[in-house]
Amino acid sequence: MSPTSASYSITLRVQLGGDPGAMGRVTTAVGEADGVVMAIDIVESKGDAMTVDITVNAVDEDHARAIRTAVEDIEDATVRSMSDRTFLLHLGGKITVESKVSVNSRDALSMAYTPGVARVCSAIAEHPEDARRLTIKRNTIAVVSDGSAVVGLGNIGATAALPVMEGKSVLFRQLAEVDAWPVVLDTHDPDEVVRFVEALSPAYGGVLLEDIAAPHCFEIERRLRESLDIPVFHNDQHAAAIVVLAALENALKVVGKRLADVRVALAGVGAAGFATARILVAEGTGDVVACDRRGILHAGRDDLDGTKRWVAEHTNRDGHRGGLRDAVRGADVLVGLSAPNILQPEDIATMADGAVVFALALPDPDVDPDGARDHAAVVATARSEDLNQINTVLAAPGVFRGALDAEARTITEAMKVAAARAIAAVVGEDELGPNYIVPSLFNPDVVPAVAKAVRQAAREDQAAGARDTGHEDVPEPA
Amino acid sequence: MSPTSASYSITLRVQLGGDPGAMGRVTTAVGEADGVVMAIDIVESKGDAMTVDITVNAVDEDHARAIRTAVEDIEDATVRSMSDRTFLLHLGGKITVESKVSVNSRDALSMAYTPGVARVCSAIAEHPEDARRLTIKRNTIAVVSDGSAVVGLGNIGATAALPVMEGKSVLFRQLAEVDAWPVVLDTHDPDEVVRFVEALSPAYGGVLLEDIAAPHCFEIERRLRESLDIPVFHNDQHAAAIVVLAALENALKVVGKRLADVRVALAGVGAAGFATARILVAEGTGDVVACDRRGILHAGRDDLDGTKRWVAEHTNRDGHRGGLRDAVRGADVLVGLSAPNILQPEDIATMADGAVVFALALPDPDVDPDGARDHAAVVATARSEDLNQINTVLAAPGVFRGALDAEARTITEAMKVAAARAIAAVVGEDELGPNYIVPSLFNPDVVPAVAKAVRQAAREDQAAGARDTGHEDVPEPA
Repeated sequence: MSPTSASYSITLRVQLGGDPGAMGRVTTAVGEADGVVMAIDIVESKGDAMTVDITVNAVDEDHARAIRTAVEDIEDATVRSMSDRTFLLHLGGKITVESKVSVNSRDALSMAYTPGVARVCSAIAEHPEDARRLTIKRNTIAVVSDGSAVVGLGNIGATAALPVMEGKSVLFRQLAEVDAWPVVLDTHDPDEVVRFVEALSPAYGGVLLEDIAAPHCFEIERRLRESLDIPVFHNDQHAAAIVVLAALENALKVVGKRLADVRVALAGVGAAGFATARILVAEGTGDVVACDRRGILHAGRDDLDGTKRWVAEHTNRDGHRGGLRDAVRGADVLVGLSAPNILQPEDIATMADGAVVFALALPDPDVDPDGARDHAAVVATARSEDLNQINTVLAAPGVFRGALDAEARTITEAMKVAAARAIAAVVGEDELGPNYIVPSLFNPDVVPAVAKAVRQAAREDQAAGARDTGHEDVPEPA
Repeated sequence: MSPTSASYSITLRVQLGGDPGAMGRVTTAVGEADGVVMAIDIVESKGDAMTVDITVNAVDEDHARAIRTAVEDIEDATVRSMSDRTFLLHLGGKITVESKVSVNSRDALSMAYTPGVARVCSAIAEHPEDARRLTIKRNTIAVVSDGSAVVGLGNIGATAALPVMEGKSVLFRQLAEVDAWPVVLDTHDPDEVVRFVEALSPAYGGVLLEDIAAPHCFEIERRLRESLDIPVFHNDQHAAAIVVLAALENALKVVGKRLADVRVALAGVGAAGFATARILVAEGTGDVVACDRRGILHAGRDDLDGTKRWVAEHTNRDGHRGGLRDAVRGADVLVGLSAPNILQPEDIATMADGAVVFALALPDPDVDPDGARDHAAVVATARSEDLNQINTVLAAPGVFRGALDAEARTITEAMKVAAARAIAAVVGEDELGPNYIVPSLFNPDVVPAVAKAVRQAAREDQAAGARDTGHEDVPEPA
C-alpha cells in the first residue's frame, strides 16, 4: 500500500453522542482503516454531545471514502460532512493581487492614478528602459504554459493547468519574493504562443516557460530568447539540468570521482533530458550515453529529430549501441528522466563501483530506490518522501531573483552553471554524505545563494560584453 | 496659474545651519514661489544644525524646479536632494502578487503544489466549469490595453500604459476586493488583441478593456463578447455611459425635468460619446443631438463611419443641423465628452431654462465650469478639484464585483442601467442638490450598492434566459 499523505487529506466533522468512549472508537476505526489521524479539533461541546473535526491523511480518494464509511459504522458517531483539504486549499485560487499603495485620499489618488500617473507614463514613453524602475516589470515574471505537458497529467489544456501555475506563483513569492503571474494560454500553436508572449512582455521582467510539451518547448524558447530583451527560461529543461548538475557535483565528491572521468547513462531525452545532456557536455563530463524509448542515441540512428540529433552528435563518443541496459552497464552515473520502473535493481548492479543513481521519474522513480541502494553508493529521487530529493523547485526562484536584481536580459549558460554550483555549495563539505547531496527546498540558504551567484554571473557576462550563445545551436525540431 | 496638486508634489531635503530663523525663511521662500508646504519632517537635529524634509505641492515640473531654486538662494539653507513624490510612489510598481496559502511545510507543499495539485487539475480537466471555484478565475479580471489611447496622452504604447493599468488594479483591490491584473499588449492589430485575450481568458473571470482607441475598441469588444463566456467591458465606453446616466438622473430631479422630455446635446462621439448616446437612447431620452468635430450628426451626412452612422440614425429626430453651438441652443442638457474649452460660457446662456451641463473633457472641461454656472442650474466636470465630479471610477469596480459574484457570463444593458441607478441612489433625496448629484468615489456605499444591483440584474437576466442583445447591433467600423 502506498503511504498516506497530506495531498489526500480529509477532515471529517463527526457528531458524538454521550458515550465518553465514542471518540476512542472513532480514532481506532480510522487507524484500522489505515488512515492516519493528524489532528482533532473540538467544534462544539454541548452537554454530553460533542462535535469534532478529525483530520486524516489517506492514500487516495477511495481510501478516504473507506475511512469515512468506517467511522459511519460506529454507533454513537455521525459523520456530518467530509471535506477534502487539498480542494479546500485551492478554493478561490491560491494568489491575490495586492496594492502597495493606499489610495484612500484624494492626494494619493492623484499621484497613483490620474492625473499624476500621466507624468510617469510620459517618462516611460520617452525612456522605455524606465519601465524596469517605475512599473511592476522590475520584480514580475510571467509563468507561461499552454497546458500541454502538465505534472504527469499530459495535455490537459490551459484551464486545468492553472492550479499548477498558481502554485508556482506561491513558491516564487514565498521563496524568492518574486511576483510571478500565471499566464495560461489556450492554444497549442507555437507561433501563437511566441506572438502572445512577445505581446505580453512589456509588463514582465522575465518569462518562465512551464509544462510545454516537446518539441514545441524548444522552438518557443529559442524564438523568445531571440526576440525578447528579458530572460526566458524553460523550467522543465533548465531547472532539471541545474539541479542534476548540482546533485552530481556533490555525489561525485562522495564517491571520489571527477566529472571529467565519469560516464553518465541518461534515460529519457525529452525536455529535461536534452537540457541535462547539454549542461553535462558543456561542463566536460567524461561521456554521456543517452537513451530514448528505442535505445541508445548514436550518430548512426536515422530516426532522430533535431534535439535528439544534437545529443547523438555530441555524446556517446565510444559509439555504444543497444538499449538502456547496455547504456547502464559499466556506467558511473545513471540519470533517470524517463518513466517509473523501467529498470530493475539488478540493472544497477551492472554499473561501475561507487555508482551514482538519480532516478527522477514521477510519480515513481525510474528504478526502485530501495532496491537500487543495494548496488549503488548514492541514490536520489525527485519524490518528497525520499532522502536526496532532487527537486527542480531548487533552481528557478533563485535564478529569477538574481536575474531580476541584475536586470539581466537573458539567462546565459554561465548563470545556470553558477546556480548549480551555488545549490551544491549549500551542503557543506562536512555535511556531505551519501544521503545528503542536495539541500532541502525549504533550506533558507538556497535562494539567496543561488540569487547571488546568478547576479554575479550575469554582471560578469554583461561586463565582458558577452553575447548569449547559449541557445544559438539549439536545433530546429525535425 | 493652475492650482498646485499632490500629483506635482516634491520633497526637498534641506540642511539648515545654526540660525533659528532659517526654517522660517525657507517656508516663506516656498510660499513666495507659489508652492504650498504640505508637511515638514525633521530628519536629523545635531547641535545647531538641522536637516528637514519639506513636502511641497507644485503646479508642474518647472514650478517644482523654481521652488527648489528659491530655497537654494537662501543663506544658511542647502538643498541636499529633491524627490518627486509621484515617481517615488510608482517605484517598483504599485501592485504585488501575494500568496493566500503558506507552503512552509512539506504537507502544505504537497497540497498546494505537487503531488496534490494534480488532483485539482484533473478535476478541472474533467469539469472545466470548476475553474470558477478552484482557481483565481473566481475573483480575477484582466485589465487589457494596447496603450493606444491612454489618459489624455494618446498612443503611447503598451509599456508606457502600464502605470495606468497598475493604477486600475490598485483601485479594484481597494474599492471592490477584485483581483485585477494588468495585461498590456504590444500590438495595435485588433485581430491580435482579440486572439490574445481569447487565449488568455481561462485564468480570468472578466475582461476590462481600457484605453484602446476607437474604432478598434468597438470591434475588439464586440468580437470578445461573442467568443468569451466571461464579461467583457470596455471601460472608456460603458463606465462613462453609466456615470453620465447616473448623474443625469439626479440632475434632472434637481431641475424638475423628466428624461423623456429633455433634449441632450452631446459633444464628442468617440468611445465614451457613442456609449453615452446608446444608453440615453435606450433609456428613452426625449432626444439626443450629437456632434463630432464637423458638427451635428444627422442622417444626411455621408462622412460617418459605423458607430457615428448608428448615432445619426438613432438620434436627432427633429433633424437639427449645424455646429455644436446650434446643438446646444435650446438644449436642456449638455454632455461634453470632447475637448477642453470648445464652448464659451455665453453658449451655455443659449440653453433652455434649468440647464444641466456635464463638461467632462480632461484635463480641462469642454466649457469653463465657473462661467457655465452663471447660466446653468447644474454643472459637473470630471476634474477632482470641482464639485459634482463625474468620475468613471465610480462604475467598473462595483460592476465587476457584482458580475463576479453572480458568475455572470456577460454584462447586459440591464446590468449597466442597474449600476447607474444604484450610483444615483447613493445620493439620498434629502441630500440631492445642484452641487451634489453624484457620490464621491471614496463613498464606501457606492461599490456595495452597485455590486448588489448588478448581481441582481445579472441573476434576473439569467433566470429569464435572456440573451445578451446589448451589442448585437454595434456596427462594424467603416
